[in-house]
Amino acid sequence: MSDIHFDIGSLHAAYQAGIGIAEVIDTVLARIAAAADPGIFIHLATRAEMLAEAEALCPFDPVAMPLWGIPFAVKDNIDVAGMPTTAACAEFAYTPASDATVVARLKAAGALVVGKTNLDQFATGLVGVRTPWPIPRNAIDLKLVPGGSSSGSAVATARGIVSFALGTDTAGSGRIPAGLNSIVGLKPTVGALSTAGVVPACRTLDCVSVFALTVDDAYAVFSIAAARDATDPYSRDIAVQPLVAHAPVLNVGIPVKADLKFFGDTAMQAGFEASLAMLSRLGCRLVEIPFGDFYATADLLYEGAWVAERYAAIRDFFEVNEAALHPVTRKIIGGARNLSAADAFRGFYALQAYKARLAPVIASVDLFCVPTAPTHYTVDAVLADPIATNSRLGSYTNFVNLLDMCGIAVPTGTRDDGLPMSVTLLAPAGLDGLVASVARDLHAASGLTLGATGWRQPIGRPVSEAAEDSSIELVVVGAHLSGMPLNGQLKQAGARFCRATRTAPSYKLYELAGQATPKPGLIRVGNGGTAIEIEVWRLPAAAFGHFVAAIPPPLGIGSIELDDGSVAKGFLVESVGLLGASDISSFGGWRRFRSDRVPA
Amino acid sequence: MSDIHFDIGSLHAAYQAGIGIAEVIDTVLARIAAAADPGIFIHLATRAEMLAEAEALCPFDPVAMPLWGIPFAVKDNIDVAGMPTTAACAEFAYTPASDATVVARLKAAGALVVGKTNLDQFATGLVGVRTPWPIPRNAIDLKLVPGGSSSGSAVATARGIVSFALGTDTAGSGRIPAGLNSIVGLKPTVGALSTAGVVPACRTLDCVSVFALTVDDAYAVFSIAAARDATDPYSRDIAVQPLVAHAPVLNVGIPVKADLKFFGDTAMQAGFEASLAMLSRLGCRLVEIPFGDFYATADLLYEGAWVAERYAAIRDFFEVNEAALHPVTRKIIGGARNLSAADAFRGFYALQAYKARLAPVIASVDLFCVPTAPTHYTVDAVLADPIATNSRLGSYTNFVNLLDMCGIAVPTGTRDDGLPMSVTLLAPAGLDGLVASVARDLHAASGLTLGATGWRQPIGRPVSEAAEDSSIELVVVGAHLSGMPLNGQLKQAGARFCRATRTAPSYKLYELAGQATPKPGLIRVGNGGTAIEIEVWRLPAAAFGHFVAAIPPPLGIGSIELDDGSVAKGFLVESVGLLGASDISSFGGWRRFRSDRVPA
Repeated sequence: MSDIHFDIGSLHAAYQAGIGIAEVIDTVLARIAAAADPGIFIHLATRAEMLAEAEALCPFDPVAMPLWGIPFAVKDNIDVAGMPTTAACAEFAYTPASDATVVARLKAAGALVVGKTNLDQFATGLVGVRTPWPIPRNAIDLKLVPGGSSSGSAVATARGIVSFALGTDTAGSGRIPAGLNSIVGLKPTVGALSTAGVVPACRTLDCVSVFALTVDDAYAVFSIAAARDATDPYSRDIAVQPLVAHAPVLNVGIPVKADLKFFGDTAMQAGFEASLAMLSRLGCRLVEIPFGDFYATADLLYEGAWVAERYAAIRDFFEVNEAALHPVTRKIIGGARNLSAADAFRGFYALQAYKARLAPVIASVDLFCVPTAPTHYTVDAVLADPIATNSRLGSYTNFVNLLDMCGIAVPTGTRDDGLPMSVTLLAPAGLDGLVASVARDLHAASGLTLGATGWRQPIGRPVSEAAEDSSIELVVVGAHLSGMPLNGQLKQAGARFCRATRTAPSYKLYELAGQATPKPGLIRVGNGGTAIEIEVWRLPAAAFGHFVAAIPPPLGIGSIELDDGSVAKGFLVESVGLLGASDISSFGGWRRFRSDRVPA
Repeated sequence: MSDIHFDIGSLHAAYQAGIGIAEVIDTVLARIAAAADPGIFIHLATRAEMLAEAEALCPFDPVAMPLWGIPFAVKDNIDVAGMPTTAACAEFAYTPASDATVVARLKAAGALVVGKTNLDQFATGLVGVRTPWPIPRNAIDLKLVPGGSSSGSAVATARGIVSFALGTDTAGSGRIPAGLNSIVGLKPTVGALSTAGVVPACRTLDCVSVFALTVDDAYAVFSIAAARDATDPYSRDIAVQPLVAHAPVLNVGIPVKADLKFFGDTAMQAGFEASLAMLSRLGCRLVEIPFGDFYATADLLYEGAWVAERYAAIRDFFEVNEAALHPVTRKIIGGARNLSAADAFRGFYALQAYKARLAPVIASVDLFCVPTAPTHYTVDAVLADPIATNSRLGSYTNFVNLLDMCGIAVPTGTRDDGLPMSVTLLAPAGLDGLVASVARDLHAASGLTLGATGWRQPIGRPVSEAAEDSSIELVVVGAHLSGMPLNGQLKQAGARFCRATRTAPSYKLYELAGQATPKPGLIRVGNGGTAIEIEVWRLPAAAFGHFVAAIPPPLGIGSIELDDGSVAKGFLVESVGLLGASDISSFGGWRRFRSDRVPA
């Protein structure tokens, strides 16, 4: 069996080096055979079908087709034209004539469908064992559940059978199996990826999700798949940001210690603490947040309205074919049959109340970090107590879609007992790029190999700076630097961090006299200047306008030359404002000056 | 009986002229007696209670208290501390200890509660006859229904008993009675006014609405009442814009002729056409829009989910006191008892599909104009066929809250048969100020007297120019002055000229060296400065942002002190940029310097 690494960069490099697409397809088939796990796929493309797909592609061109020749798997509740869609219920099966919108977009980018993967029936479950097909086996430890509901997609990715796989995520189905198989699971903002052609679980909450071996790959697939889709009423215009470096200092919300749930799993607790230490080393500030309202929100998902939504999704089928359902799935979904419309509204009101209470809490930090799962369960443990174990697994995932947050599960290490450790980073809708940028650094810091493959992490492609758009760069020098007192003003204005760098060596930095919030003043000088450390942020034009309009004298906005010769708009001080100011240029920047001043 | 006009401006002028608040209260009571309509109020404050409220106010101060001594009525599904809230169901009544949030805000602004007004029971209806209390009588024509559900509030306003009244609006209850009684009915964006302390109809759609004799008054009350309220989870941050002149040309969507519904009422059809002609004369461009999807959306409101929401609102009461309900109300709300949660989701999905389809349609125009009601009904006609007539009245109102639009019903004339003509202007959430600004001009153009009072419209207070809007002032000093080479850049960016003035006497003006287009540089100096002639322009925020971003060094934007002591953003030069520059401060400004230089 060929040892071609299947992360996208490595595979494209292999193609570039002359490997044939038939060899890649044979590698896929060989890895499926080697896995010897009949639970992963519900339907497989034949070698001939995959070759035919490949032959339809243009010659290798990763610019025109960024997923050229990249094999992927599709959870079997997402339509692929000509392959049956079962949702893990044979009696429900149909064969769609066309691809789900996301599948069509990925195929158009050159990706090859390998097959349809097993799942917790009707995407109801986080365990991966609620299927009439064989249970997929956890790629890291055969005794453990693979996690669900996107079980087969996660295992196929973790074993390197495919480069990436599509899942779905309503309650955590795109994150839990990623965490349990030591891969990346990107759960986009609801509506960023079309759900047209997806069997609904809860239509108001459903997302298509992406499993991959690396954050870069997951984010690339997300970026290609994301688009407004007029055929999906829940589709939204979510601007996909390029994956750029995050601000050097971020405030990360974490559950207060007393609110953490590990159900006695001390190894997971230790692993989470170690993950937080990694975050701190990356420059993040940890902010403890009471988590009671998040858990209460999570509980809503299986207590009423949204179970009824699952029933609504398959009501016609359920009423005729109740016996065809997996017994646990039948019990859960059937339980909603007698819920009234008034009960549903009771649920919505409860959710709205939590949303209103949590909005300022969520806004108080840049992002959140939680364990992906509170513990690992064996298959035997889940079969013995199928509902309670499932419910516990969702502790840190069930609230996310209800609160319109996006997230990404990322491996952060190996626990003392050898099992995988994973955390999930969460942020408000639209900040998929922010959580991915932090996840990228965490994954790199972990030094882990990829999934169950043993492959080393590829050298990270340098992240691009923010692409050109109509927003405007702003050079900040002092109190608006990340982590400084006025940085929140930038974030509130919708600013994105671009880079930390220095000015050209033709400036002086002063500490201004008589300021309530300590502030520096930057001024260009004819000679004798210094290079001063600054940060470049980017604001939407209107926000930039309002921001400039609010700057008090003696500060203003002028052109600042940076050390690479480029010029950007940024804070300058009027010369008349330097009365009584002290020259602090020798510190090289405001952060250094302040940290020398303020005891840590 | 005193003939004090009760529009807010006239009443404040009367107070200013020395009238006492007791006389105003006696006028209220005299007008109630003269109306001889026991259907208007369910509960009235006593003269003593009103006097006590009045005595608690500061001395007359319409700046500190913009509603000082202004009498208003409150629909009896909105709490007023110490007065029973019945929702027009005696068995449901309770006496709240505190005011609804909006009532509290209005009282704090000096307004006086006169009493609680009749309504279609539980705010379910558009007719005003579904009440166990006497039916309020239409203020214009006694045979006609008053419209509902906010019947008493509209009639009390139209008769000049109060200056304004609060209603609620879920399906049109704040617009239909305004239209039928020839007054203004402002239906705010959902969430702009708190519904804390309001008996819910459909909590996800409910608004508190404002009835007034003039648009200025309705908008003033709205502006005072609007605020984010942490005790109402559906409260939103809706920025209340000042009521300014609208753009000279607006695109106004109207239903295509074939989609207009008048149910045979040719007088209403002619009245609507006349109203559209008024809009055209005001400079609006009429754009015909197919209305099928709007009507289909409207139908959802009484077909499933949202009727269940009305049931959910009073479920506990309903189950015990079903017999206490008005028979029509009982029939409608009770019909939802057996709807399932799955049925509710079916309704949400249908709405979401219409929202997605209508979003580009709604975005294609600035606002919409529809008839407020398609026809007038007599009380007898409604009692004979209570549900069908009610349903027809909602043709142009039912879809509005579902689609998250705001609106205002405004009288536009008198039909050929002498009955009132009214149109409703609609726009997306947050554009309450836009629809009000157009409604203001329509009302003025109608030349109508106010409601049923016979009072002439007060002379409109001049609307301010968009002085306090979100645009930003820019001080220009040199080549951007009017008539100078770069002034065209400002106009292209949408800038408006504000004024020509001078800086404070603390600046110097230089002619910069080495410029292709001759340019000055303004710099603030510690002493020895001069007042320099400048112009103030005003740019939209985004244009201002782009403008600042394009300014080349050594110029930048800082704070400039003007000769009246005010400060605005404007062009300053970096001190380092003055190398080789000539001090031209003695000319007093760039224009004088250039005209001395360049032969005219």
